[in-house]
Amino acid sequence: MSKRLEFFYDFTSPTAYLAWARLPAIIERTGATLVYRPMFLGGVMQTTGNRPPGMVAAKGAWMAADLQRWAKRYGTPYAPNPHFPMMTLMVQRAAQEWIDRPDFDIYLAAIFNAAWRDQKNIADKGVLAEILEGAGFSPEEFFAAAENPANKEKLKATTDEAVARGVFGAPTFFVGDEMHFGQDRLDFVEEALSR
Amino acid sequence: MSKRLEFFYDFTSPTAYLAWARLPAIIERTGATLVYRPMFLGGVMQTTGNRPPGMVAAKGAWMAADLQRWAKRYGTPYAPNPHFPMMTLMVQRAAQEWIDRPDFDIYLAAIFNAAWRDQKNIADKGVLAEILEGAGFSPEEFFAAAENPANKEKLKATTDEAVARGVFGAPTFFVGDEMHFGQDRLDFVEEALSR
Repeated sequence: MSKRLEFFYDFTSPTAYLAWARLPAIIERTGATLVYRPMFLGGVMQTTGNRPPGMVAAKGAWMAADLQRWAKRYGTPYAPNPHFPMMTLMVQRAAQEWIDRPDFDIYLAAIFNAAWRDQKNIADKGVLAEILEGAGFSPEEFFAAAENPANKEKLKATTDEAVARGVFGAPTFFVGDEMHFGQDRLDFVEEALSR
Repeated sequence: MSKRLEFFYDFTSPTAYLAWARLPAIIERTGATLVYRPMFLGGVMQTTGNRPPGMVAAKGAWMAADLQRWAKRYGTPYAPNPHFPMMTLMVQRAAQEWIDRPDFDIYLAAIFNAAWRDQKNIADKGVLAEILEGAGFSPEEFFAAAENPANKEKLKATTDEAVARGVFGAPTFFVGDEMHFGQDRLDFVEEALSR
């Protein structure tokens, strides 16, 4: 039976972007089933008492260089986003409903690339409408999903579940109960899927 | 000309231990010159505003599992230390003088293995005396070095230099001005040494 890989992510995380770009190859090599778990990272950080690395200035400076090195190693186009940290409640609420669409992968790619390749402000409604239209989606449908209270509740439930299972940041991966944190732990994730 | 690899470490860091265990192989492959930079991690954390990962409970739990995974991958004997975090002022002050001894490597191995293989409390004078004697050193000489005000000043200078150069945690590596943080970045360190 195919193993399940749960991917807890938020678009505001550049390391989630780097991880997302590597997932198709890992899925192809392992035959695992990828399960997207869009969560609200701001809520996770607040509940767990975790703080963004950039709050320590020296750590933020190192991380900026480190991200560039990983992107280069992977051959993934990457640019720091001047709008970071972006408020992702809107995109992550809409994701709770859109996750069931057959073209969810295309939506994910549009937003991730806008945020971490094209330096767009994905918290801005006008910018978001342009990105969505460019990828063939209806902004009206999207904003309706983002404003639907049921999706607000679902995002809260996913975020609460993440924290209850030990998540403190993004990206976080589960293979069954085994949890891995960080795009730099994908080797461990692949090992777990290959076991 | 051989490249210099500066290794900023503190014995209280289990990731510094895992890195230290891999250094001989990296030095052999690259022909680099290893320069030990014993610093006081507590001072670095305080000055930079960085906090130990374990202050976020979920992060501490993940890190405990993550350390075991890396140790297994490397084949490095490792056990969590019940005395963590150990106060390392004594051992790091003595190191400022002992770093010039031809048997400094043996001293390093004795303390690192005591801390992260044998679960010893390296902040305890009696325990430390036993470790030193077991490795063929004179505890009296060691404690004299630890109490020498010149070594206290040297440790402060090394720690200040680390912070001034961007260090916020341990282990940290420099190849010239290029800084890498973490035992999980040794591939980047080796690349920098091989360039």
